[in-house]
Amino acid sequence: MNGTLYGIGLGPGDPELMTLKAARLIAAAKVVAYPALERGDSFARSIAADLISEDADEIRIPVPMSVERAPAQAAYDAGAAQIAERLAAGDDVVVLCEGDPFFYGSFMYLFARLSDRFDCDIIPGVTSITTVAARAQKPLVARNERLTVLPGPLDEVELRSRIEGAESVAIMKVGRHLPKIRSVIDDLGLTAKATYVERASLPEEVVLPLSEAPEKAPYFSMILLAKGTDPWL
Amino acid sequence: MNGTLYGIGLGPGDPELMTLKAARLIAAAKVVAYPALERGDSFARSIAADLISEDADEIRIPVPMSVERAPAQAAYDAGAAQIAERLAAGDDVVVLCEGDPFFYGSFMYLFARLSDRFDCDIIPGVTSITTVAARAQKPLVARNERLTVLPGPLDEVELRSRIEGAESVAIMKVGRHLPKIRSVIDDLGLTAKATYVERASLPEEVVLPLSEAPEKAPYFSMILLAKGTDPWL
Repeated sequence: MNGTLYGIGLGPGDPELMTLKAARLIAAAKVVAYPALERGDSFARSIAADLISEDADEIRIPVPMSVERAPAQAAYDAGAAQIAERLAAGDDVVVLCEGDPFFYGSFMYLFARLSDRFDCDIIPGVTSITTVAARAQKPLVARNERLTVLPGPLDEVELRSRIEGAESVAIMKVGRHLPKIRSVIDDLGLTAKATYVERASLPEEVVLPLSEAPEKAPYFSMILLAKGTDPWL
Repeated sequence: MNGTLYGIGLGPGDPELMTLKAARLIAAAKVVAYPALERGDSFARSIAADLISEDADEIRIPVPMSVERAPAQAAYDAGAAQIAERLAAGDDVVVLCEGDPFFYGSFMYLFARLSDRFDCDIIPGVTSITTVAARAQKPLVARNERLTVLPGPLDEVELRSRIEGAESVAIMKVGRHLPKIRSVIDDLGLTAKATYVERASLPEEVVLPLSEAPEKAPYFSMILLAKGTDPWL
C-alpha cells in the first residue's frame, strides 16, 4: 500500500507556534522532505529541527531563487520524484512548510505533482498575517470588516487601487518592494495607520510604525494597514 | 505586580490544531476566561477542555446573540471587569479564543478594554480559512495571487462587487446568508469553482462542491472560491 503525503504547516518561525498535530507527525516521521536555498539553509527545517528523529531520512529540495520559473519547476519535479519513490514503497512522507502549506506555500507545487496518485493530508499552520497582527497588537479584522491580502511584488497601479478599495490590508513578501509600497501608502495618506513587521515571532523580530521602517526589508516582512472603518467598539 | 492577559488562539476546533504554546499556557493557567452562549456551551472551552486544570478558576463570559450591539458590549464590560480584578491581584489570565484572537475574534473586545492598563500577549492560532483550504484540498493563494476575505452578512451588492474584483475569495460566517451568497456566485457563473465547508477539522465536518451544499448552513461554515487566475504551475 502507498504511503501518505503530509503537508505540514510549521507556523511563522517560533517552534512553539507549531500545532500539536504537526509536532506529533514530525517526531514520528521516517521520511522528512523540505525546500531549501540552493546553497544554503532551509528555514522550514530550522523550525522543526528539534523534532526530527536522528534516524529519519531527509529529502532536501534545493529551490533556485530565479525570476524565471522553469528552474524552480524542475527542482519541484525532481523533489516530487524522490518523494513519489518513497510513497510508492509504502512510506509516509512528511513535507515541512513554513507558515501554512496552502497559503503562498511551496508545498502546493509538490501537491500538484503528487495528489493524483497518492493520498494527501494537509495540516494547516499559523500564518504570518495573524502572527504579525498579534505581535503588532493590532486587531486584524472585526465584525463585518473585509480583509485583503496582497503580495508586495504587485505593480504600483494595482497596489494603489487594491489598497484604496480595501478596509484591512496585509501586504506580504515586502522585501525589496518596500520603497514602492511605502510611496503608495504615503500618497494615500495612510502611513499613520500602517505597521511594519519583520520576522514575526522570531528572536530577531522587528515591529515599527511604517514611518520608522528601515530602508531595506527582508523577504519575511509585512505591512499591516487597518483603516478601522467598522467602529467595532 | 499586575498579571499578564493572554489571548490564546485555539485554532479551528480539532484540539490537535492548537499550538504547543497555547497548550502549555492553558495547562499552566490558574485563571481561564472564555466567551459562551448565554444559556449554553462555550465552543472555545470545549476545544481546550482536556488541558484546563481542575484547580483553575474559570471566568465564563455569556455573550448575548443579538443584532443590537449594546447587550454584547455590556457583557464584555462585565467580563473585562472580572478579568481586571484578577490581573490587578497579580494573577495571569488566559482567555480562550476559537481560531485566532485578532481574526474576527471576540477577544479584541476584551483587549480594547484592558490593554491600556495591563500587559497583553496574543498567541496566534490556526484560522478557519487555511483549515478550510486544507480540508477541501484546494490551495488558497499562490505566487502573486491576492486573497479577499469577506463576511457573509455583507449585502448582495457589496458581495457581488467584491467577488467580481477578486482572485481567491474566502467567505466566512456563511450561516443564514447561504442563499444570498449562492445566488451571487451563481449569477457570476463561478459556482463550479466554489467549495462549501462546514465545521472544518471537527468530526462532523462537511466538504462539498457549492452546487451540492445543503439548504441550511451553520454559523461555522465557509465558502472558498479560487478563480485560479495565476497559472502557478
